[in-house]
Amino acid sequence: MQNVDEDTITQIVLARHANAADGRLRQIMTNLVQHLHSFARDVELTEEEWFKGIQFLADVGHITDDKRQEFILLSDTLGLSMLVTALNNRKPKGCTESTVFGPFFVEDAPEYKNGDNVANGAKGESCFVSGKVTGLDGKAVADARIEVWQADSDGFYDVQYEGLAGSQGRGMLRSQADGTFHFRSITAESYPIPHDGPVGRMLQALGRHPWRPAHLHFMIEAPGYERLITHVFRSGDEYLNSDAVFGVRSSLIVDWDHHEAGQAPDGSESATPFSSLDFTFVLNRLNANAAAGAATSKVVSATA
Amino acid sequence: MQNVDEDTITQIVLARHANAADGRLRQIMTNLVQHLHSFARDVELTEEEWFKGIQFLADVGHITDDKRQEFILLSDTLGLSMLVTALNNRKPKGCTESTVFGPFFVEDAPEYKNGDNVANGAKGESCFVSGKVTGLDGKAVADARIEVWQADSDGFYDVQYEGLAGSQGRGMLRSQADGTFHFRSITAESYPIPHDGPVGRMLQALGRHPWRPAHLHFMIEAPGYERLITHVFRSGDEYLNSDAVFGVRSSLIVDWDHHEAGQAPDGSESATPFSSLDFTFVLNRLNANAAAGAATSKVVSATA
Repeated sequence: MQNVDEDTITQIVLARHANAADGRLRQIMTNLVQHLHSFARDVELTEEEWFKGIQFLADVGHITDDKRQEFILLSDTLGLSMLVTALNNRKPKGCTESTVFGPFFVEDAPEYKNGDNVANGAKGESCFVSGKVTGLDGKAVADARIEVWQADSDGFYDVQYEGLAGSQGRGMLRSQADGTFHFRSITAESYPIPHDGPVGRMLQALGRHPWRPAHLHFMIEAPGYERLITHVFRSGDEYLNSDAVFGVRSSLIVDWDHHEAGQAPDGSESATPFSSLDFTFVLNRLNANAAAGAATSKVVSATA
Repeated sequence: MQNVDEDTITQIVLARHANAADGRLRQIMTNLVQHLHSFARDVELTEEEWFKGIQFLADVGHITDDKRQEFILLSDTLGLSMLVTALNNRKPKGCTESTVFGPFFVEDAPEYKNGDNVANGAKGESCFVSGKVTGLDGKAVADARIEVWQADSDGFYDVQYEGLAGSQGRGMLRSQADGTFHFRSITAESYPIPHDGPVGRMLQALGRHPWRPAHLHFMIEAPGYERLITHVFRSGDEYLNSDAVFGVRSSLIVDWDHHEAGQAPDGSESATPFSSLDFTFVLNRLNANAAAGAATSKVVSATA
C-alpha cells in the first residue's frame, strides 16, 4: 500500500502516467507536474491561496468566449507567450525577429491591392506604410502573402466592436515583383490590453499597467521561407520599455515619420497631417527538416 | 532599451513585479513565473502545444459553474490538492491525517442527533457508523462538531442530482460527553469522478481511470483543536492504490464489516444486510500561533 504524503506524492502522480500512449504528452505532463508541485512546495502554498488561485482561473474561464481569450491574455502578461514565440523562432542573425501573435488575428481578412487603404473606416490619422520582403541574401521575395492588422486610434481592433459588419484596419496583400509593397492605413497608437477582467485585476495587484506600445501586426508567408509573425513598433513610444505582454524586440522598432498636410508618399494630396513608415522584412529559409512541420502547422487564432 | 529574448524574458517579467504592494503575492508570482517559464524551456513547448493548453484551460473554464468545479478536479487529478493539503496539515504522529476536501461539501447541512439516519433517502445498503473524537492524549473531545458527507450507491452526491430538494447522505452531528458518536447512513461505494469533461479526456489520454475508492468524508471541529478534514476509506477496495485524486493515506483505511440481516449495532432489527464501521479521530491541539489564523480561515467549498 503506497502512502501518499508530501514527500511521496510527486513520484506517485508521475508513476500513474507510465501508461500514457503518447510519449510527448507523458513528457510534457511529467515536467508540468514536477514544476507545479515544486511551486507549491517552494512557496508553501496555503489552502486559502490555493483556493484563490482556483477562483482566479474560474474567473478567467468565465470571461473567455469566442471574442475574448483571457487565457491568452494571461499567458501574454506572464511572458509565457513571448517565451514560447522565442523558443520556436530561433533564426540566423539578420532575419526579422518574431514576436507574439496576440489574440486579435482573424482568418479570411479582405484582400487588397498595393496602394489600397486597409483602414476601411477605422478611426485615426492616415498612415502610409511601405516595406520590402527579402531573403537573408537580400534577394527580393515576390508574391509573398502579407497579412496586416492593427488597432484604431481609440486602441480597439475591429473585432472588439460589437456588431461591426466588415473588417477595419486589417487586410491581406502581396509583395510585388521587386519584393516591395505599400498600403495606406491609420496611425497606430499605444493602447491598454483588455483590463476589465481577472487579468486586469492581476496586473493592478502586481503594480503593473496594461499598456502596449503602438504597433502594426504582420504575418508574412512565402514558399520556401518560414512564416514570420511579428510587429513593427513606433520609436519614441513611452511604453516600449514596459509592454504589458513583453513583445518588444529592439530590432522591430522603427521611426514613424510625421508629416504636415500636403503631398503623400503615394503622390496623392493629404488635406490632413499623416505619418509614414518603411520596414524591410527578412525571411528565414525553410530548411528541409522544418518544411514538413511548417506545411501542416496551423495559425492559432483566439478569435477564430 | 531592454531586448526581450528567450534568455532575458524571465528576469524582465520578474522585474516588472518589483512594485507589487503585497509582498506575499510578489513571492508567489515570482516563483510561479520561474516554474512556468522553466516548464516551457525544459520541454521546448511548441506553439501548437501551447495553444492546445490554452484551449484545454478554456474548456475547463467553460464547464465550470456553481455546481461543477473542473479546476478543482484538475488540481485534484494532478495531485496538487493533496500536496497542498499535506503541506498545510503537518501533525504529530498519532493524530488523524488529513486528506483532500473535494468539491462536494455543502454549507448548512441538516443537523442530526446521534442514532439518526443521515441517508435521508439516498440509495444504498444501510451502514452503521460509529466513532470517537479524542485528543492526542486519548482524552475524549465532547461536543465536537462532526460534518459527514458521502456519495450514494450509484456514486453520486446529492448535489449532483438536478432539482433534489433536500440533503441526502450528508449531515452534522455532535460527539457525546464521552467523545463518541454514531449515526446510520448508506454503504459508500467506489465511484468515478466526473469524467465527461476536459479532465476526463486528460485522464484518458494519460492512460488513467477516473475512479475513487469508497470513502466517507468527515470534517471535525472542536474548540482548542485544529479543524480536521479527512476521509475514512474501506479496506479491500480495488482502487485504494490508484485513487484518481491521490487522497488515500494508509492510516485512514479501516474494515467495513458486512453483516447479514438481523440485529443492527443500534439494537434495531435490519431486514436486509448492512455494513458497519468504527473509527477514532485524533485531533491535533491548536497552538497559540495557529489559533488566530484558524479562527478567521474559511472552509472553501466549490459548490457554495
